[in-house]
Amino acid sequence: MHIALDAMGSDDFPKPDVEGAVLAAREYGDAIILVGDETLINAELKKYDTANLKLSVVHAPQAVSMEDKPATVGKEKPESSMAIGMTLVKSGQADAFVTAGNTGAALAIATLYTLKRIEGVKRPALSAIIPSIGSGVTLLDVGANADSKADWLLQFAIMGRIFSKNALGIQNPRVGLLSNGEEEGKGNELIREAATLLKSANLNFVGNVEPKDLLKDQVDVVVADGFVGNILIKSLEAATSMLTSQIRKELMHDLPSKIGGLLSKPAFERVRKQIDPFEIGARHFWGLMGL
Amino acid sequence: MHIALDAMGSDDFPKPDVEGAVLAAREYGDAIILVGDETLINAELKKYDTANLKLSVVHAPQAVSMEDKPATVGKEKPESSMAIGMTLVKSGQADAFVTAGNTGAALAIATLYTLKRIEGVKRPALSAIIPSIGSGVTLLDVGANADSKADWLLQFAIMGRIFSKNALGIQNPRVGLLSNGEEEGKGNELIREAATLLKSANLNFVGNVEPKDLLKDQVDVVVADGFVGNILIKSLEAATSMLTSQIRKELMHDLPSKIGGLLSKPAFERVRKQIDPFEIGARHFWGLMGL
Repeated sequence: MHIALDAMGSDDFPKPDVEGAVLAAREYGDAIILVGDETLINAELKKYDTANLKLSVVHAPQAVSMEDKPATVGKEKPESSMAIGMTLVKSGQADAFVTAGNTGAALAIATLYTLKRIEGVKRPALSAIIPSIGSGVTLLDVGANADSKADWLLQFAIMGRIFSKNALGIQNPRVGLLSNGEEEGKGNELIREAATLLKSANLNFVGNVEPKDLLKDQVDVVVADGFVGNILIKSLEAATSMLTSQIRKELMHDLPSKIGGLLSKPAFERVRKQIDPFEIGARHFWGLMGL
Repeated sequence: MHIALDAMGSDDFPKPDVEGAVLAAREYGDAIILVGDETLINAELKKYDTANLKLSVVHAPQAVSMEDKPATVGKEKPESSMAIGMTLVKSGQADAFVTAGNTGAALAIATLYTLKRIEGVKRPALSAIIPSIGSGVTLLDVGANADSKADWLLQFAIMGRIFSKNALGIQNPRVGLLSNGEEEGKGNELIREAATLLKSANLNFVGNVEPKDLLKDQVDVVVADGFVGNILIKSLEAATSMLTSQIRKELMHDLPSKIGGLLSKPAFERVRKQIDPFEIGARHFWGLMGL
């Protein structure tokens, strides 16, 4: 596989981006194409032993910042590392593009200027994988569309199902609709309308699901409006991060707690690994003519 | 204070409801009026020493079940314990009514049949107190209005501010708007419209807040659409309950973990107390002619 990686994406670019490229090339043997300022990238690459690694550099004279407006950045920075990286995917030189940068800008550049939508797809959607007892729940949309329509949610379900089946290996993914109650008829207007569409589609639709169902083995694909899906993942992140920091604090409170904390460190480490995706999980963007 | 308590509200009514009434009368010295089937209530009351407690019973021949539809229950069960309990508040015989029963039914009976709205209030709202480093964050609406309008959100802010100030003792409550990003202009259409209204109102409006801000000392009152607010509290509950059960499981994994878990039990107990409101916190209903 050839992966185009935005070398100008992270806050401390190109340091962590280049380090990640080296690690990925070493661990997976895939070809990584670093896209960005070639002088900066090459200076960073010199710090590593890159012999036998499939690493290459494609120069991009511009970089997207967190301050760039998604609505205008595609026009203002036509030669950004994001635009050039996605163009590599479009031309077939890369199989996928990865960035740690401005999500809104990446979505806009992908949708309007480079990869563009698959014919028939009304709105591309951003997905997250939520850790659960099973193989992980695919939640979409988690932020690309803050005001969704019912027929978009139906398409999100179809796209999520394809991903869950082909990438996560789930034979017949159970599709749920995020709502404020499991009973039929619960939800807001959008959810009730989407439920009707999902029921008559040829999907393994299990009905409304609540946030708790995402953390058990109850459902494989969960569909939500982008605003609500975003609030959900941010709430899960906030609760787990608050809870772990409170536990850490209380475990320093007195000597028995400190000893207890030391003894149970491997147990905490195992829990931390299970919830890691809440904090570090990448998002996938679906519905485009390229990954 | 005189509190009217629905004796028919909980799943195992009237057992926990009556026990709660006895405990409250004993601990706070307030007068508790148990509303419901008097035969059942009196049989239950006999199990306790109620001498010197201000406990009384008001008979109600009907009870609302979890299956009753909010839209029709007020008409179908005019003599339910909910309806009669709220009528006690309306007539001044009680200062507040409390129920552990069907939330939707309680909201409908309160709004349409008994207490009714305060003049000028467009929609009553349900609030929850989220534990945080400070005095607790008042979040509303958490479920009464699944499709809110911007001017309703403005009123939720005003009601939340009054509660935060008078009941939680926060001098000048900071009011925030729940959104998917803190930057101005983030959110969906509803949120952007509500932000404009909140900015020009005479409130201590601090702008958009994200779920993580609710768990720190960043804001005192957070306004949300009822669907989104409900998803938020359910996500916080789901994450904390998943995390605590995973920790519990991993602490049983081997002997060092078990010993560590025992030694750090008081630390966990302190954390559990801090997050308890996620699971057991009562909801307040605002905008009515009575509590």
